Amino acid sequence: MALIVQKFGGTSVGSVEKIKNVANRVIEEAENGNEVVVVVSAMGKTTDELVYMAQDISRTPSKREMDMLLTTGEQVTISLLTMALIEAGHEAISFTGWQAGMQTESVHGNARILDIDASRIQAQLKAKKIVVVAGFQGSDANGEITTLGRGGSDTTAVAIAAALNADRCDIYTDVTGVFTTDPRYIKEARKLQSISYDEMLELANLGAGVLHPRAVEYAKNHQIPLEVRSSMEKEAGTTIEEEATMEENLIVRGIAFEDSITRVTVNGLPRSLGSLSTIFMTLAKNRINVDIIIQSMTAEDTTNLSFSIKSEDTEAVLNVLENNKDQLAFDRIETEGGLAKVSIVGSGMVSNPGVAAEMFEVMANTGIQVKMVSTSEIKVSTVVNEKEMVKAVEALHEAFKLGQHAKVLV
Amino acid sequence: MALIVQKFGGTSVGSVEKIKNVANRVIEEAENGNEVVVVVSAMGKTTDELVYMAQDISRTPSKREMDMLLTTGEQVTISLLTMALIEAGHEAISFTGWQAGMQTESVHGNARILDIDASRIQAQLKAKKIVVVAGFQGSDANGEITTLGRGGSDTTAVAIAAALNADRCDIYTDVTGVFTTDPRYIKEARKLQSISYDEMLELANLGAGVLHPRAVEYAKNHQIPLEVRSSMEKEAGTTIEEEATMEENLIVRGIAFEDSITRVTVNGLPRSLGSLSTIFMTLAKNRINVDIIIQSMTAEDTTNLSFSIKSEDTEAVLNVLENNKDQLAFDRIETEGGLAKVSIVGSGMVSNPGVAAEMFEVMANTGIQVKMVSTSEIKVSTVVNEKEMVKAVEALHEAFKLGQHAKVLV
Repeated sequence: MALIVQKFGGTSVGSVEKIKNVANRVIEEAENGNEVVVVVSAMGKTTDELVYMAQDISRTPSKREMDMLLTTGEQVTISLLTMALIEAGHEAISFTGWQAGMQTESVHGNARILDIDASRIQAQLKAKKIVVVAGFQGSDANGEITTLGRGGSDTTAVAIAAALNADRCDIYTDVTGVFTTDPRYIKEARKLQSISYDEMLELANLGAGVLHPRAVEYAKNHQIPLEVRSSMEKEAGTTIEEEATMEENLIVRGIAFEDSITRVTVNGLPRSLGSLSTIFMTLAKNRINVDIIIQSMTAEDTTNLSFSIKSEDTEAVLNVLENNKDQLAFDRIETEGGLAKVSIVGSGMVSNPGVAAEMFEVMANTGIQVKMVSTSEIKVSTVVNEKEMVKAVEALHEAFKLGQHAKVLV
Repeated sequence: MALIVQKFGGTSVGSVEKIKNVANRVIEEAENGNEVVVVVSAMGKTTDELVYMAQDISRTPSKREMDMLLTTGEQVTISLLTMALIEAGHEAISFTGWQAGMQTESVHGNARILDIDASRIQAQLKAKKIVVVAGFQGSDANGEITTLGRGGSDTTAVAIAAALNADRCDIYTDVTGVFTTDPRYIKEARKLQSISYDEMLELANLGAGVLHPRAVEYAKNHQIPLEVRSSMEKEAGTTIEEEATMEENLIVRGIAFEDSITRVTVNGLPRSLGSLSTIFMTLAKNRINVDIIIQSMTAEDTTNLSFSIKSEDTEAVLNVLENNKDQLAFDRIETEGGLAKVSIVGSGMVSNPGVAAEMFEVMANTGIQVKMVSTSEIKVSTVVNEKEMVKAVEALHEAFKLGQHAKVLV
C-alpha cells in the first residue's frame, strides 16, 4: 500500500464529464489498495470568468477580495469530484485550503506556504476515505483566505505530498509527459522517461509550461518523486527525480522556446556602481520581469545595457524608464521586438564545456543570427528572430539527437 | 449614528450592474453616518446552476458536498460587492459565514444557528469599514461548512442584527414591501406601512414569499425591527415590528393564496387513539408536509381523515400510505386535485370572533364552495377550487376593505 497524491489541472476537470473521468483515475489508484489524496484546480475557464467579472467592477480590484473570489473556483471542483467519487461507491471527503491546513503568509495573490497542519487529512485517510483538496489556496494566521499565485495547485500537491511523506506525487495534465521540446512545433519531439529536478526547473522557467517551477523546487527540497502524466491517456508519463537515480544521463535533455520577446537597450548609462541596480529595482517595483541581461562598456566611460522582456511589457518598461530618466541618467533607449528565446537544457552540460559552442555552431550553420546569450550550469539561452525560432529548435533537436533514445550517454 | 444590517437577495445581486447598484444603496447609508453590515445571497441563477451540475453527477449528492458547492455562490457575491464598494472610495471587507462567526449545528443543508461570534465583524466596524457577509452559510464546531436552508440569507441578516444589537435590519428585495395580497393577481393590492411579526409569520408560512418565516421568528424573539423594501425603488417599504408599536391595527391585514393543492381523504380508519399520530408520523418520516387536517367521525366506529398537501407530493403520499396499509388499517383513499388555499391574516381577529363567519359569507355570496377550513388565532384558511382562487381573493380583498387605508380600526 502506498500513499499517493494526485493533482488534476483545470483542463482535466473542465466539465462534469471530465470530472467523472478524473474520478475513475482516482478510483483506479484507490482500488489498487493505495491511500489517495487528490488536489484539483478550478474548472477550465472558471478563473478567467471570475477575473472578467472583477475587472468589470474595478481595474485594480482589492487583492484580498480577488482571493476571496478566485478560491470559489477550486471549491466547486472539490465538491463535484467528491460527489462523483461517492456516487461511484467510494468514501470521500473534500477540504478547502484552510480546512486542509494550508497555512500561508499574510499575502494576497501570491502567498508562500508556511506550514501544513495535515491532521484533518490524515484522520480522513485513516478512516479509509479518499481526500479531495482545493489547490492554489490557503489561509493565514488570522483566518484570511489566501492564494498561492500561478501554478499554485502544483505547489499544493507537492507540499501535501511532503507533509504526508507520500510515496509519489502524480501531476495529471493535458500532455502525456515532459518532451524534449514542444511537440506542437517539432514533430520529432520525444517524451522523456525521466528528467532531473534541476533540468525540469530550467525547462519550467523557460516556459515549457507543464509544471510550475515553485512546485519543482519544493519537490526537489523535499525529495518527492513527481510524475507528469496525461489525465486522458493511460500511458506512463515522465518521472522527475534526483539525477543519481535516473537511467539515462543526456548532455542536452530538452529544448525550450518562447516567442514575443523584445530586447530593450539603454544607451549611455553612467558607469557608476549603482546604476544597474537602480534600473532593475525600478523595473521590479513596477512588477516587470526582466530575463536575459547583457552589459557592455563603451569608450566614453558609459555603459550600454540590453535586456529581454516579454513584448507585452514594452510600453510599461518604456514608461518606467522615461519617468525615471532624471535619476537613471541614460542617453537614449532602443527596442527591438519580434524576437524569440531558444534554450537548451541538460544536467550533462556542467561537465561538457563545449555544449554552448556546439549550439552556436548549429545556429551559424543554419544561418540564424544569435542576438543575445545567457548561460547557467545546465542551460544555454539564446535570443533570435521570431521567424527563425522553429527552424532553430528543429536544427538543435536534430543536432543533439533528442529524437533518439539515450544514445548520448556521458 | 445607527448600526444597520442590510440584506440583498439573489435577484438584487443578479449581475455585475446590479451589484454596483447595491453598492450605491449601501454607500447611501454609510454616507449618512451609519455603521453598515451587508448580507448578500448568491447571484441570481447561480445556485440553480450549481445544483444542475451536482445532479449531473448524482441524483442524491452528499449533503456535505452540496454545502461545500453552494456556499461558493455567496462567496462570489461578497467579493464582487466589496470590490465595488472599494472602487467607489469606501473601506470595505468581506467575510464568509465561518469568518463572520456564524456557528451552526453539525447538520448539512438545513442547519440552525447556535451562536454568533461577532468579534471579527465588530473589529472591522470599529475600523470604519463596511462589512459584507455571505448569507445562508456558517460552520460547525469541527470547521465543517454548513448551510441554513431555504431563506437562509434572511436568517443570517436577522441573526447578525441581533448579535450586533443593530438598530434596524433592512431586507431589500424585488418588491417594494409587504402587500395586502399578491399585486400580480389583484390590482387593488396595497402596500402595508407596517405589519406585526405574528401576522408576517402567518403570511410567510402561507407562501407570501417575501421573507422567510425563520427570519421573522428570529426577529420577533430578539425584537429586531425589520423593514422589507425594494432594492431598485427608493420608496419606503413595510416595517415589521411588535403589534403595540404599530399605527393602524386592522382586523384583516392580508390575504395569502397558493394553488396546486390536493386533498387526500383516508376513509375507514379505526377509531383508536394512535391511528392519527401513526399516519402523520409516517408521512413526516417520508418528509411530506401536511397542511390543513380535518377529522370526522362516522356511524360505524371508524374515522374519516382529510388533509391537504402540495399536489406534487400526491404520488409520494399515496405510496407511503399504501406501503403502510397493514399497520394503518384504513379502508380506502380518495384524492381531489386542482385545489387552492386562500387565507386571511390579521392580529385583530383574536378579539373579533365574527371574522371567520364574515369570510364564509363572502365566499357563499360569490358562489364559491369552501372545501376545507382551518383557523388559528390570527388567520382563517380555506381550500377552494383552483379556478375560483383569484375570484375568492378579489372578493375578500374588497369585503375587508384592504384596498383602502386604515378604515377598519379596532
